[in-house]
Amino acid sequence: MRYAVLGTGEVGRTLGGRLLELGHEVTLGSRSKDNPVAHEWATAAAGRAHAGNFADAAAAAEVVINAVGGRVALQALEAAGGEHLDGKIVVDVSNPLAIEDGELRLDPVESDSVGERIQRAFPRARVVKTLNTVNCQVMTEPGRVPGEHNVFVCGEDAEAKEQVIVMLGEFGWPAQRVWDLGGIRSARAVEMYLPLWLGLFRRIGNADFNIEVRRAH
Amino acid sequence: MRYAVLGTGEVGRTLGGRLLELGHEVTLGSRSKDNPVAHEWATAAAGRAHAGNFADAAAAAEVVINAVGGRVALQALEAAGGEHLDGKIVVDVSNPLAIEDGELRLDPVESDSVGERIQRAFPRARVVKTLNTVNCQVMTEPGRVPGEHNVFVCGEDAEAKEQVIVMLGEFGWPAQRVWDLGGIRSARAVEMYLPLWLGLFRRIGNADFNIEVRRAH
Repeated sequence: MRYAVLGTGEVGRTLGGRLLELGHEVTLGSRSKDNPVAHEWATAAAGRAHAGNFADAAAAAEVVINAVGGRVALQALEAAGGEHLDGKIVVDVSNPLAIEDGELRLDPVESDSVGERIQRAFPRARVVKTLNTVNCQVMTEPGRVPGEHNVFVCGEDAEAKEQVIVMLGEFGWPAQRVWDLGGIRSARAVEMYLPLWLGLFRRIGNADFNIEVRRAH
Repeated sequence: MRYAVLGTGEVGRTLGGRLLELGHEVTLGSRSKDNPVAHEWATAAAGRAHAGNFADAAAAAEVVINAVGGRVALQALEAAGGEHLDGKIVVDVSNPLAIEDGELRLDPVESDSVGERIQRAFPRARVVKTLNTVNCQVMTEPGRVPGEHNVFVCGEDAEAKEQVIVMLGEFGWPAQRVWDLGGIRSARAVEMYLPLWLGLFRRIGNADFNIEVRRAH
């Protein structure tokens, strides 16, 4: 499969690296064509790894992964160009998180979500929100954490969610641990989990954790 | 121990009933002295069960549990009277949740929390936020759900949290499954988990579930 991973931060490089390992072709997209981090990444990875601006990356891809921060996701996808997203799966793993004056802020929060904003801005893209509830190491290697812990998918397009569940399966998430929470509106719920994730992170002292939903029946 | 449980809804009645079972004295508090639900509950429970208005209940108690909805918590506690809360543990199990026109709304959200508002309004009360992340049946009988699933405590007073952890232990929560998330500001994190709880509830179809935090190390 040909993936575009938008964002050259730790999340983007980790997702891109894992997809390469799995045999996929990956373009790491950044704001400018000559982002040194992206080029270094592509050179080190060689073969099926490429670097480009957001538009180059999206144009070449079958699936586009948004791995820039939630607050700049729309800008990055606008730079990628709506025409390069039409009909494609857009996987959004972002959180609208910033620390301002030592305070955690989510924006949007509760009355909207990044997932919904992306779907609204690009109505012909098939947006799936997933993986934002775990650190990027756990995203791509869930076996780091013991137990039958869960991730979630949210989106309007059932077939797109199925295809994302296949990708998650390649990462190591068995299908029964991927819970479909419904339409893209549910992105609000998974984005609002972030403050609890941060509280757990502070208490545990590292990001190698996740939640397992336990049920009686 | 003498408990006041403020609120005669399902949460208040379930918590009150469980505390009675455990041998405590419980006054179920409501807005008016002659709330028929509270009186029926006290009569049926007999012995160490009483009914009264919020002020009667709080005045008689060593520990006050807020089991009214998060959006009316301050009103109920103001009716209880600050002088009846001074120096006492105030356990807040509420969520600031309302459904308006079919939309889930939390108020406050992100920049404040019910837990903080209570602590701010009653600075001499020793507020502990806990249990709001599970249904009242699971609150009082965690064994309904298999696994080592977790609850959280948040508050400024370490000794108050210790005492609440003892109460949770009586309910059936082993101390190692009760995670201290820090000061009362962390109430924001556990209150913002509610939309995810609701998403899981819709998917599972009942409220007998909880999350277990899984960690690598």
